[in-house]
Amino acid sequence: MNPPANGAESLVRTLLHGGVDVCFTNPGTSEMHFVAALDRIEGMRCVLGLFEGVVTGAADGYYRIAGRPACTLLHLGPGLANGLANLHNARKAGSGIVNVVGEHALDHVALDAPLTSDIEAVARPMSHWVHTSRSADAIAADGAQAVLEASRPPGRIATLVLPADTAWTPVSAGAAPDPLAGARLAEARRRAPVAADAVRAAAQALRGGAQTLLLLGGAALQPAGLELAGRIAAKTGCAVMSEFYTARLARGAGRVAAPRLPYAVDAAVKALAPYRRIVLVGTNRPVGFFAYPGKPGLLAPPDAELVSLASVGEDLDGALAALADACGAAAVAPAGVVQRAAAPVSVPTGRLTPDGIAAIVAARLPEQAIVVDEAVSTGRAFGAATATAAPHDWLTAMGGAIGFGLPVAVGAAIAAPQRKVLALEGDGSAMYTPQALWTIAREQLDVTVVVFANRAYQILRGELAGVGAGAPGPRATDMLTLDRPALDWVSLARGMGVEAVRIDELGAFDTALRDALGRRGPALIEAVL
Amino acid sequence: MNPPANGAESLVRTLLHGGVDVCFTNPGTSEMHFVAALDRIEGMRCVLGLFEGVVTGAADGYYRIAGRPACTLLHLGPGLANGLANLHNARKAGSGIVNVVGEHALDHVALDAPLTSDIEAVARPMSHWVHTSRSADAIAADGAQAVLEASRPPGRIATLVLPADTAWTPVSAGAAPDPLAGARLAEARRRAPVAADAVRAAAQALRGGAQTLLLLGGAALQPAGLELAGRIAAKTGCAVMSEFYTARLARGAGRVAAPRLPYAVDAAVKALAPYRRIVLVGTNRPVGFFAYPGKPGLLAPPDAELVSLASVGEDLDGALAALADACGAAAVAPAGVVQRAAAPVSVPTGRLTPDGIAAIVAARLPEQAIVVDEAVSTGRAFGAATATAAPHDWLTAMGGAIGFGLPVAVGAAIAAPQRKVLALEGDGSAMYTPQALWTIAREQLDVTVVVFANRAYQILRGELAGVGAGAPGPRATDMLTLDRPALDWVSLARGMGVEAVRIDELGAFDTALRDALGRRGPALIEAVL
Repeated sequence: MNPPANGAESLVRTLLHGGVDVCFTNPGTSEMHFVAALDRIEGMRCVLGLFEGVVTGAADGYYRIAGRPACTLLHLGPGLANGLANLHNARKAGSGIVNVVGEHALDHVALDAPLTSDIEAVARPMSHWVHTSRSADAIAADGAQAVLEASRPPGRIATLVLPADTAWTPVSAGAAPDPLAGARLAEARRRAPVAADAVRAAAQALRGGAQTLLLLGGAALQPAGLELAGRIAAKTGCAVMSEFYTARLARGAGRVAAPRLPYAVDAAVKALAPYRRIVLVGTNRPVGFFAYPGKPGLLAPPDAELVSLASVGEDLDGALAALADACGAAAVAPAGVVQRAAAPVSVPTGRLTPDGIAAIVAARLPEQAIVVDEAVSTGRAFGAATATAAPHDWLTAMGGAIGFGLPVAVGAAIAAPQRKVLALEGDGSAMYTPQALWTIAREQLDVTVVVFANRAYQILRGELAGVGAGAPGPRATDMLTLDRPALDWVSLARGMGVEAVRIDELGAFDTALRDALGRRGPALIEAVL
Repeated sequence: MNPPANGAESLVRTLLHGGVDVCFTNPGTSEMHFVAALDRIEGMRCVLGLFEGVVTGAADGYYRIAGRPACTLLHLGPGLANGLANLHNARKAGSGIVNVVGEHALDHVALDAPLTSDIEAVARPMSHWVHTSRSADAIAADGAQAVLEASRPPGRIATLVLPADTAWTPVSAGAAPDPLAGARLAEARRRAPVAADAVRAAAQALRGGAQTLLLLGGAALQPAGLELAGRIAAKTGCAVMSEFYTARLARGAGRVAAPRLPYAVDAAVKALAPYRRIVLVGTNRPVGFFAYPGKPGLLAPPDAELVSLASVGEDLDGALAALADACGAAAVAPAGVVQRAAAPVSVPTGRLTPDGIAAIVAARLPEQAIVVDEAVSTGRAFGAATATAAPHDWLTAMGGAIGFGLPVAVGAAIAAPQRKVLALEGDGSAMYTPQALWTIAREQLDVTVVVFANRAYQILRGELAGVGAGAPGPRATDMLTLDRPALDWVSLARGMGVEAVRIDELGAFDTALRDALGRRGPALIEAVL
């Protein structure tokens, strides 16, 4: 290999060497040398987003499915800022991302040009690691360190600030191309084994039988972890649940069911009330999504014992295997394995309802689909109905920041081009990052988007009452209502190159969904509720 | 007045008392008590945006035209993060904004719920003042302080974090409703007079006659300041220019012309080359927007003397008046007053070109129009052509972060409902905050949007060469090209309730522009280049 010509090329080579070969990008002037380097070096797939929230959300979705980091390319502080909300979601989901953020040339920063801002300060709240490269020769080591930091389990946000002159300056002939990758990367990716004490404590808690809950999160929600949990449940009689928001939850026929903890505080408290002991595997103690006057923030019974078997970055499969051994469950047939529901005799018809939509989605979901769920209020009906669908993964916004769904669908589709992605979107939430539709069209991704057009921030109507703020008057109602004017999702989608249909009846919804799921490529269905 | 029922009502009353009576909002659960308070207290105009960049950009545009702060209502750290890029622009433009950012109840923050983040850290890079309210009783004082901080000249970003329990807790009967407004607000808004020494130094520099440049920024670009600059120019022979990006530049017939410093480094260096002395009035020393290899970052001749008469927050009109006195120019007729161009004999016809469009815009611009210019590469032709148009204000993104135009148009239209707003948008830049079109439709704002559809990040093609990265290869070209698929702005606009037409010929453009400008209400023209 020829020595790298400049810092930008050195960085691209380092990223590729570290296995980072997808770049979600929205570049500007300060990133032009990185863009130019992509022409001279083979191997990096570049995916353009027209807004940075698409870029960072796509990187989140990519990691959840591919299991390794993509990089982003962002333009200075404001470009990074536009991507922060989905970095927040990625951080909470344990997704690894290498952000490459262009910066002015180092001696230009002091001049306080219009785009100058404190990029490291912008990055820090949503990053685990932030570093500014100081020279072209240092960038191979800096880039390798960024890959390494992003790869630490469960996956972390590493932000590398790349001053323009660091990118354009030639690298010295003697500079090492990639001093940290290889063995150190494998070491960084390794999940730490859990301590024997933790396994013993969890096994002790499981003697409580049906009064014990195994609450799963992170990688424990993939098939191997679920199966081990099912064996433990079969042996000990414990219950199995998953945290409410999940980075990636394996569900459907053939998998051990881990019903999600409910979102609403009262329902969650009720769901946890039977348990005296809760064993946490890759998740934290359950807490309310929001605080409400007079309601608890901690959802478990106050006298319940919480036992943490393993934190989200530890070896969860290993921990569950050790726990199964300790319980004598290793060879037991798992409990809670889901049977595929019989095909429906007839699909529901009539006016669109969440329950009717859920039944149709459950019946039509293809094998190994990836469901990205940002359906918010409409989606409450989907959990139970889809539990017996064909095997699939279910992805939700672990950080709770809306605008996550369409971008995550982009990244998931790029990570798994052979799998169908179904994005379930509220109309309010889809409007935060609608630009993702253009990337879906541009890359001809195999994504079906269903937008639930209730023409309101419907969830907030409930929340207004829930926080004790009373019934909404005319101004509050106006702030929660999106029907003046009604968004026309068919036009919006066509404006970005995605074919779309508007549906207001269940039979037509079934036809449209079967059509979209039955062929490859982008499609959008506006379901008017 | 009854005592406020809770902290949220106390805050709304305090804001109104401080003259803040417009709220640009995108609320969530943690803001529901603030929303409910708006129903119980008269006087706050609420404008909903479907994305937070619309909200903060609108507040920027509002301040530029109204001269007093609006407030924003944003949902926790991610909501604030989505608004940061336009807060960056507002901060650089000297626009005053009171951000109200909802936060979890104080005892819920420690539980690390999904939406928890360090809101103060997110706010700080783009805020001059950040504070978290700690009790319902403290919120009147906190809110008044926020208004005061936002009102300090030229206008500053004040971010008040409002924990949900602070909003919902009843205020004690004895708590003062608004301890800081009134006299202290007037004092905060006062612009400091410039020192006599600074006036003397500037007058001395002006003895250089034609070798001296008066470079204006901030409030000096309004008609009074320009007229004083024109008198000084008439008396001393100095030149007058404005900084490249301007918060609000008064232009057109009857005003003293202050041509904008060019954007490109070579052109700017050439424009400044004749001057041995540069007097800065409400602006900093001129610097390059970006750094380029082998080009200077400082644009003035290295041996030129830079004399700062007044910084952007000082009394610029007073400084220019004192300077005119010191030069004996107070009673002189101003130089450089623009004459209205004669009406064109015929409008240009044929294929759309930037020059042809510029000529038509210049001919059709109504009196007192507000032009929001985010036309990027297409807009380079507009400065000279529109100099002799009817009197108008010209607004640009002082922070250089794109996605500023449509939101700023929203805020400007709400600040001045009797004035036509013309938003000139590149297709690339308009895609960062397209949700503003929905707010324009919802509020039936008198905004005409022209989107220049060159279907590329055209500016970056030049920048790629400008930074010495060479000619773009296939992958770089792909990252700078937006024609796969082509954005359909007519569909996008209709999807958000704005009527739109597509134009590719100058005669038709003239007809469409006259139609849009000749009636009230929203319109969008897609100009395909």
